[in-house]
Amino acid sequence: MQKATRQQIKEHNTRLVLKTIYSQQQISRADIARSTRLTRTTVSDIVGDLINDGLLVEAGLGSSLGGKPPILLNIVDDSRQFGCVDLSNDEFQGALVNLRGTITKRIHVDSTDDSEKTSLDCLFKLVDSLIESATSPLVGIGIGSPGLIDTQNGIVRQAVNLGWKNLPLKSLLEERYGLPIYIANDSHVAALAEYTFGRKRQVANMAVIKVGPGVGAGIVVSGEIYYGDGFNAGEIGHIRVVEDGSQCMCGNFGCLETVSSTRAILRQARALPGRPASLSMEEIIQAYNAGDAEIQAIVNRAGHYLGIAIASLIGILDIHHIVISGSPICFGEPFLAAVREPVRNQVLSTMADAAEISCSSLGSDNVILGASALVLSLVYGLP
Amino acid sequence: MQKATRQQIKEHNTRLVLKTIYSQQQISRADIARSTRLTRTTVSDIVGDLINDGLLVEAGLGSSLGGKPPILLNIVDDSRQFGCVDLSNDEFQGALVNLRGTITKRIHVDSTDDSEKTSLDCLFKLVDSLIESATSPLVGIGIGSPGLIDTQNGIVRQAVNLGWKNLPLKSLLEERYGLPIYIANDSHVAALAEYTFGRKRQVANMAVIKVGPGVGAGIVVSGEIYYGDGFNAGEIGHIRVVEDGSQCMCGNFGCLETVSSTRAILRQARALPGRPASLSMEEIIQAYNAGDAEIQAIVNRAGHYLGIAIASLIGILDIHHIVISGSPICFGEPFLAAVREPVRNQVLSTMADAAEISCSSLGSDNVILGASALVLSLVYGLP
Repeated sequence: MQKATRQQIKEHNTRLVLKTIYSQQQISRADIARSTRLTRTTVSDIVGDLINDGLLVEAGLGSSLGGKPPILLNIVDDSRQFGCVDLSNDEFQGALVNLRGTITKRIHVDSTDDSEKTSLDCLFKLVDSLIESATSPLVGIGIGSPGLIDTQNGIVRQAVNLGWKNLPLKSLLEERYGLPIYIANDSHVAALAEYTFGRKRQVANMAVIKVGPGVGAGIVVSGEIYYGDGFNAGEIGHIRVVEDGSQCMCGNFGCLETVSSTRAILRQARALPGRPASLSMEEIIQAYNAGDAEIQAIVNRAGHYLGIAIASLIGILDIHHIVISGSPICFGEPFLAAVREPVRNQVLSTMADAAEISCSSLGSDNVILGASALVLSLVYGLP
Repeated sequence: MQKATRQQIKEHNTRLVLKTIYSQQQISRADIARSTRLTRTTVSDIVGDLINDGLLVEAGLGSSLGGKPPILLNIVDDSRQFGCVDLSNDEFQGALVNLRGTITKRIHVDSTDDSEKTSLDCLFKLVDSLIESATSPLVGIGIGSPGLIDTQNGIVRQAVNLGWKNLPLKSLLEERYGLPIYIANDSHVAALAEYTFGRKRQVANMAVIKVGPGVGAGIVVSGEIYYGDGFNAGEIGHIRVVEDGSQCMCGNFGCLETVSSTRAILRQARALPGRPASLSMEEIIQAYNAGDAEIQAIVNRAGHYLGIAIASLIGILDIHHIVISGSPICFGEPFLAAVREPVRNQVLSTMADAAEISCSSLGSDNVILGASALVLSLVYGLP
């Protein structure tokens, strides 16, 4: 808690005005004053500054209640861009995203080598292209990375697949590009994407389960990502869900990732008699939906154990909104039913009844959109 | 986010001054101004008001650096009292607590009947006595109650042992006594007590596991109790920890409470051949510490399953500080070792290594002290 200075009050009030226009769209100065309880003069001053900065525009006239019709204001969605990066796959994804989470340009770069230099070179190449392609001022670069990320200091503590350990990525990129850089764990930004742009947006508490080669959760508490003491919150991939289960890459046994990750599903499906070693997730999804009983057993078992981990999460956090993201959402309703069953049996009924488990509406863009939401919230306090 | 008014700024700054004095003790006006970055005039005005209210006192002179020695200020610990109530046992506990969490008076009332009227009558009797016994202005009454408590609206949604369902306890008591009333779940306030007065005080994130006839956790996130969407956060007593376990009172099977609660320990110990049906927790603790192998097996198994639930909690929340409270802490180090073992095997090693599981230093007063901390934080924003 610090002293509220004049400058802080101005920033606070500017964010308040922006937030009001962002959520309402098409709003007059008078209505902003009413809604924010700021004086009309304060609102006019702030609005004038924002119009000068190009962030706002006068966008027509509202209906009058007798007097002069009010001028309506709007955010200029394309007045700023964010460079967004998703490092969670072998192919690094990049995008330019506007103030409303609309992707205006996509770029990708293959990273096939593991050494620090090469992963970093790929990232440089991607960011170079993003900066070149920007068509309006770039506010900053947001990055969603797998692994253990110290978000506060912008350090990648450990990202095995990228070959990074204690890499001061933020300061490295800020020095190179002279732009603000924001980095967070990919599951964490996926949660922020759901909170900002998803079907359940602006629900105060939310858990987003990201199922890919690993399994992780991003937890939103009171509208903010909850990072945990060591930035590892949501590491549900290593909760034990199988008694006497097989060994995980982490060294422990029976971890959720050993049964519910796409890697685990692929491994089990490929080991079925007569199945090719090249079997892909797309083929498994097709087989599942076509009624292939062996595949269905593997996938539904993955769903069952995912449900056990979600049951613990609900029991501990009493979160009503659980969103699943990643390719397993293509298994659809039968998979969700397998996930929901242990939640019904392993959580107090009042809590289980209140919990809604649904699929992400953002598809594979959730890390890119989450990276943009990270910049949007840190720079403008939006939404 | 609302407009920052003059009144809000004043309240904000008053809380800031109080917080500074509360944490520093013996501090001069000049040092408050330095620490808060408020102007000396603002600090002097606020301090003057607080002295008039009796909350502060000038408590001597500091050492001078050349000029006039500065007057040191102190909180008057006994200038206000909180009425605090713990409803988690058959015997309702009440206490008067000062601004520093010192209990200055204890009162208890037996509640043996289950009907709403009688539990409520007992509570009235307890609060009547607290109000009569107060020796300085009573700021409010804080209540820690078992069950499902809607803290925001002060409604006891369900408290089976008290026979209460959807009881608007806050408004009922406020009408009767004309005092502000604050109610929360007993595990939640126990966590607030640890945060405010415990050995680990002011650690931002903390989970306090309360083991009694039931098992619950209170979770502190960023210095505030995390309640969850339905005020049920921390209901770890009903996480499934035993596959093919026995049925719980909640209807599900294998819940933590069926093996790790004091009720479960008592039930199993009393069922041992040749043991009396009247066996008490005190006797079990004595037997455990005296090396009784049968009792040790039951208790260590309770610890093991408690550890499994704690492992999930750490995996999900990455909280470094876990505090266990309740009578099982009397089992001491061997019990803690049983709790820690599954945490080592079922959590990522970096997270397990960072997590510290310790015993509460507040003993059976933690709900009373938590109730006082609830009032302290809501009324004064302290600590």
